[in-house]
Amino acid sequence: MEKDVFCSIIAGDIPSTRLQEDNSFVAIKDIHPKAQHHYLIIPKKHIESIDDVENSDRDLMGDMVLFAQQCAKTLNLEGYKLLVNVGEKGGQEVPHIHLHLLGGEFYR
Amino acid sequence: MEKDVFCSIIAGDIPSTRLQEDNSFVAIKDIHPKAQHHYLIIPKKHIESIDDVENSDRDLMGDMVLFAQQCAKTLNLEGYKLLVNVGEKGGQEVPHIHLHLLGGEFYR
Repeated sequence: MEKDVFCSIIAGDIPSTRLQEDNSFVAIKDIHPKAQHHYLIIPKKHIESIDDVENSDRDLMGDMVLFAQQCAKTLNLEGYKLLVNVGEKGGQEVPHIHLHLLGGEFYR
Repeated sequence: MEKDVFCSIIAGDIPSTRLQEDNSFVAIKDIHPKAQHHYLIIPKKHIESIDDVENSDRDLMGDMVLFAQQCAKTLNLEGYKLLVNVGEKGGQEVPHIHLHLLGGEFYR
């Protein structure tokens, strides 16, 4: 199976601007930002989409929310949005779960 | 402390159109839908915002993602978006965590 771009970023084969990282997740700057602060929180485990999450991934999903909260604190955001696009028809562009963290001024 | 509107909905004091419910969550129709399918997934536990989630809420947050996935399956959505607004500056209007599930055609 060909690696998706996020697997390559996690492996370090493609460069990225990392905000934060732990054993399970990495947060990188979105290269096409839709807001002043726009990061992607990506689980290192390859799961294609939220539709493919299994009951055994419950802890990982809980940790993803906590990791996003920590990233927002690192960035000192007063308010922010967390967004996951699910499936092509939901606007998902890379087949590897990623949570958008958006804060500050939004771009049009 | 005065109850927020979602606590009142959960208690049954304010009517709502429920899609799905379990011990921890309820999914209700958004009364100002932004898309053809627009539901709010609300934890029954009163937590003001994602910023207030504690490590001990990890399971609840994981379950929230799984519950949202189940709601999307109930609705037979091919693609969808999951969105949480955090804090007033993040567009949060009710001080009780709610996850927007948006699918089908979006309204302008």
